[in-house]
Amino acid sequence: MKTPLVYVVMGSDSDWKVMKRAKEVLEHFGVTVEARVVSAHRTPEDLGPFAAEAEKNGAAAIIAGAGGAAHLPGMLASFTVLPVIGVPVLTTALSGMDSLLSIVQMPKGIPVATVAIDNAENAGLLALRIIGVSHPEIQKKLREYREKIANESRAKTKNLT
Amino acid sequence: MKTPLVYVVMGSDSDWKVMKRAKEVLEHFGVTVEARVVSAHRTPEDLGPFAAEAEKNGAAAIIAGAGGAAHLPGMLASFTVLPVIGVPVLTTALSGMDSLLSIVQMPKGIPVATVAIDNAENAGLLALRIIGVSHPEIQKKLREYREKIANESRAKTKNLT
Amino acid sequence: MKTPLVYVVMGSDSDWKVMKRAKEVLEHFGVTVEARVVSAHRTPEDLGPFAAEAEKNGAAAIIAGAGGAAHLPGMLASFTVLPVIGVPVLTTALSGMDSLLSIVQMPKGIPVATVAIDNAENAGLLALRIIGVSHPEIQKKLREYREKIANESRAKTKNLT
Amino acid sequence: MKTPLVYVVMGSDSDWKVMKRAKEVLEHFGVTVEARVVSAHRTPEDLGPFAAEAEKNGAAAIIAGAGGAAHLPGMLASFTVLPVIGVPVLTTALSGMDSLLSIVQMPKGIPVATVAIDNAENAGLLALRIIGVSHPEIQKKLREYREKIANESRAKTKNLT
Amino acid sequence: MKTPLVYVVMGSDSDWKVMKRAKEVLEHFGVTVEARVVSAHRTPEDLGPFAAEAEKNGAAAIIAGAGGAAHLPGMLASFTVLPVIGVPVLTTALSGMDSLLSIVQMPKGIPVATVAIDNAENAGLLALRIIGVSHPEIQKKLREYREKIANESRAKTKNLT
Amino acid sequence: MKTPLVYVVMGSDSDWKVMKRAKEVLEHFGVTVEARVVSAHRTPEDLGPFAAEAEKNGAAAIIAGAGGAAHLPGMLASFTVLPVIGVPVLTTALSGMDSLLSIVQMPKGIPVATVAIDNAENAGLLALRIIGVSHPEIQKKLREYREKIANESRAKTKNLT
Amino acid sequence: MKTPLVYVVMGSDSDWKVMKRAKEVLEHFGVTVEARVVSAHRTPEDLGPFAAEAEKNGAAAIIAGAGGAAHLPGMLASFTVLPVIGVPVLTTALSGMDSLLSIVQMPKGIPVATVAIDNAENAGLLALRIIGVSHPEIQKKLREYREKIANESRAKTKNLT
Amino acid sequence: MKTPLVYVVMGSDSDWKVMKRAKEVLEHFGVTVEARVVSAHRTPEDLGPFAAEAEKNGAAAIIAGAGGAAHLPGMLASFTVLPVIGVPVLTTALSGMDSLLSIVQMPKGIPVATVAIDNAENAGLLALRIIGVSHPEIQKKLREYREKIANESRAKTKNLT
Repeated sequence: MKTPLVYVVMGSDSDWKVMKRAKEVLEHFGVTVEARVVSAHRTPEDLGPFAAEAEKNGAAAIIAGAGGAAHLPGMLASFTVLPVIGVPVLTTALSGMDSLLSIVQMPKGIPVATVAIDNAENAGLLALRIIGVSHPEIQKKLREYREKIANESRAKTKNLT
Repeated sequence: MKTPLVYVVMGSDSDWKVMKRAKEVLEHFGVTVEARVVSAHRTPEDLGPFAAEAEKNGAAAIIAGAGGAAHLPGMLASFTVLPVIGVPVLTTALSGMDSLLSIVQMPKGIPVATVAIDNAENAGLLALRIIGVSHPEIQKKLREYREKIANESRAKTKNLT
Repeated sequence: MKTPLVYVVMGSDSDWKVMKRAKEVLEHFGVTVEARVVSAHRTPEDLGPFAAEAEKNGAAAIIAGAGGAAHLPGMLASFTVLPVIGVPVLTTALSGMDSLLSIVQMPKGIPVATVAIDNAENAGLLALRIIGVSHPEIQKKLREYREKIANESRAKTKNLT
Repeated sequence: MKTPLVYVVMGSDSDWKVMKRAKEVLEHFGVTVEARVVSAHRTPEDLGPFAAEAEKNGAAAIIAGAGGAAHLPGMLASFTVLPVIGVPVLTTALSGMDSLLSIVQMPKGIPVATVAIDNAENAGLLALRIIGVSHPEIQKKLREYREKIANESRAKTKNLT
Repeated sequence: MKTPLVYVVMGSDSDWKVMKRAKEVLEHFGVTVEARVVSAHRTPEDLGPFAAEAEKNGAAAIIAGAGGAAHLPGMLASFTVLPVIGVPVLTTALSGMDSLLSIVQMPKGIPVATVAIDNAENAGLLALRIIGVSHPEIQKKLREYREKIANESRAKTKNLT
Repeated sequence: MKTPLVYVVMGSDSDWKVMKRAKEVLEHFGVTVEARVVSAHRTPEDLGPFAAEAEKNGAAAIIAGAGGAAHLPGMLASFTVLPVIGVPVLTTALSGMDSLLSIVQMPKGIPVATVAIDNAENAGLLALRIIGVSHPEIQKKLREYREKIANESRAKTKNLT
Repeated sequence: MKTPLVYVVMGSDSDWKVMKRAKEVLEHFGVTVEARVVSAHRTPEDLGPFAAEAEKNGAAAIIAGAGGAAHLPGMLASFTVLPVIGVPVLTTALSGMDSLLSIVQMPKGIPVATVAIDNAENAGLLALRIIGVSHPEIQKKLREYREKIANESRAKTKNLT
Repeated sequence: MKTPLVYVVMGSDSDWKVMKRAKEVLEHFGVTVEARVVSAHRTPEDLGPFAAEAEKNGAAAIIAGAGGAAHLPGMLASFTVLPVIGVPVLTTALSGMDSLLSIVQMPKGIPVATVAIDNAENAGLLALRIIGVSHPEIQKKLREYREKIANESRAKTKNLT
């Protein structure tokens, strides 16, 4: 079976410090990641071709991060039938509330799977859950990961001093 | 000189009851209006061709209304260099705050001229002000309109009983 | 290949009028749906067993709707490695903003794929996109569905009168 | 009569700098405190056993701090009939508004006694008021404490220079 | 042992339709309830005497409902060392967000146990949990109540048709 | 001594149903009221002359109600040194939050005395408190009014059945 | 004629850095200022006597600053018929939105003249406008002050380089 | 053909660090800019004459920046029929939400073209789009600018390492 592929895209390279967490967690689980700057507003004509490329390459999901009037996740979801995961990026003025509402409040017909503000790691983990539906070995690793963070969490009581 | 042309577009015909106010005020001032349903999410591949058509036909502005994760005004502004006026449409859950932030909080490079929630009439009047910059007769009519609403306003004191 | 299975759960049967839209769209695409009332607060001891059952039955996703301090989607995501899709249900006092934030703002480690307030139809469509990753025939139907809503959208211009 | 016992729990040891104020005020009044990391999301299977342990040990209250999609206080309240006091922890993006709404907006049947954002000291004082209902000596100390902060407050006028 | 006593107070009799739910649930558990209109703003001089009366009569808790700039719960908490439970009442303009913040955001020293907007039933149940700390028979009834709402919740799956 | 005079102005006669409560309470206390429609936006050139007229006639205060981008109170406060009381009028979309922030958040130098959303009655009472500073008989009536509403409030306990 | 007197009070001396601006502007206009720490929550029994003292001493206004669940201005307004001016103090978590709503949203009968968040200078200027109603020389100084800030404002254009 | 002229005004020179971005982008495109401090609140009597001057000098647009209770853009739009572009300036307390709502929520009759919080660059670009309607060479330059930012955006993928 082919290695799963996930795209991690963002409107600007200034979002990379947030978005690279998605890449890291995916690669940690053995998933191939392709990261790219795709701007809904500066390169709108690239949206369709990018979405087509992702479908053609058999991607399992597209993770898209954006801030402010964050149109990238929703527009990619409009151009493809792949699952699109949106990461609302924290903004200076409105603390990411603008990013969150612009991403999550999609109209009937075109869903975006939205995660928490700036939480690209969870976007990666959600992509892994999606891949896990048809890849039992990823699902097994996710169970091990859950076990690991559970034990780490339990061990933290000793720090409460 | 050619009659000015303004496009009034919206993501769904359910927004027409709000958006037709823009058409009415523009036609009242003698401007030609072309109204159309263009959905950023349901027909994303139509955005580019529509923007090109509007430019080719010499439109003075595009008025775009949308609600929720309202991407239409911003995406049209991305595909054209015409002034794009965004009307945030009132939504059931979040009272149009989602529409407003999705439209107004555009990133550097691509402005949308945003008006008040559900205020399509003002979108029309803003388009008229834009046209007025190069059409003195429209500017003159706008002055007369201001005079008229000033007098109407003054006459309302007599209703305070 | 087995028919895909999706669970649609909610904290109270009063959410069914919203959540049944998820079931309808999934069944329209030939997916088996199991609907259930599971309350994070009233039956917390049922969360683990329910999640285990969903995993054992090979579900592709769990769609969970909840309002107010909406803990159901996040708690189910904690008990399983399946993709969990959260539907923030509209509330009287805070218009679903409480539901939205309670569902989407999950901490690192446990993602919930959040959709728009009251938009259970999109939760169903998101589950279909997830299933489509490993079921080409569902992906094909989603493309046809997109085609259909695109054409319906285009046809609505004639209603702008 | 046995020394009263209160549990102070939190989802992560990073909340300890806020939550230890609850422990301090309780111990200052002679109440025994047991502090623990219990994560609703990372160790959901520990919630039930922890709640049972707290009941078995005759705790007078559980104080639970959590941030973001803050489910810990509400889930503990679901597993026990003890009074549960929730402390919404300040968050980077949404300033604790997400924490507050996730904790306070509980559905009918399962209350959480919510205090101000990051105000773990008040959570401790609320536990003391609860204990005071059946421990006159704690109620007496609370009266003395009120007297003390009243006098300290009055003395501060001299600093207004 | 004396029957437990809880006061249910509110700023205006117009809040009674919300607040009487607290009285009902308390009386259902055999607790004596004294309901009263006490307005922080219209009868500020009554706050101190009322608080003293409640302490003298050995009340286990005071439940106070208020809307808008809702000062009643916090002011009563200032005048007494009894546990004070605040119910933010839904308001026309700001949907109870003003009530909620005015009640929950108390400064260090004076806690108010805040429940969800308009959720007086939970205020009653919280008072019962507080009483239960020293009244095993109330704690036992609360366990039976939890059992009952759990079973009612489970039975609702059959309504999802 | 001359009868005190207060102006009650608003941007539109549609606000009269809210604003007339200010007139009623003022006249009930024997204050002369002049009500007028003055629109900051439709008749901006009238703002200065109106403010001058109010000063010349020795008004004790100007009460100004406005909704949305509510500029009337702040602009009148800019044109006069009389106390200006602002009433944020409830709006359809944003529930008066826009009106409130537009009125209360004035920059250093130009204060507006802001009252609660739609609470024109309190605007009238605030004007009476201002007048009372130099009119002992008004202050006396205000004390009687406070006595009256206190007694009415106390009498409402009997309705809690 | 006696020198006018204004009280400037606050719940804690930590608010003095904000509130002293009120004192400064008042003293600059020759008004006597009495500053004091009065806490609605820590010294509730002092509210009534303080209000009575202010009335007895013939104060023209009370300026009260408070943050969070900011009850001080509203409670003072309940105990007196003097004009009470509320200054919502900026808070860490909710940026003063909690302070603002707790102060401005007063119920019918008891108004608080609310100014902008942290804008104690405007509270002072508002007190001066109130005093000016019966003190022509203060009104004259306010006109000169307006002239001065107008000229300072005009002179700032030269800094735009 | 005359060089186009745009006014860039603001209530205080402290906003210049934000607003000068509008001047820079306009001058970069060869447009003449006149920058000025005009305060709606400190120099209200200058609003009318300034608007008249702008009209007389044939300005294509007025860009106005303001924060808090931001009345400048709306008041200028009231005094002129030129297109007025409003820039909501970021505020300390409410993050520019007060500025945004005060500018965008204008009543029927008087539109302000609102851009994102602190985004004066987009205000400049919007003025250029307005000028472009009658100046093909500006429209051509805007197309080249869009081309440039598109290519810059595409080149940023290489930074994602």
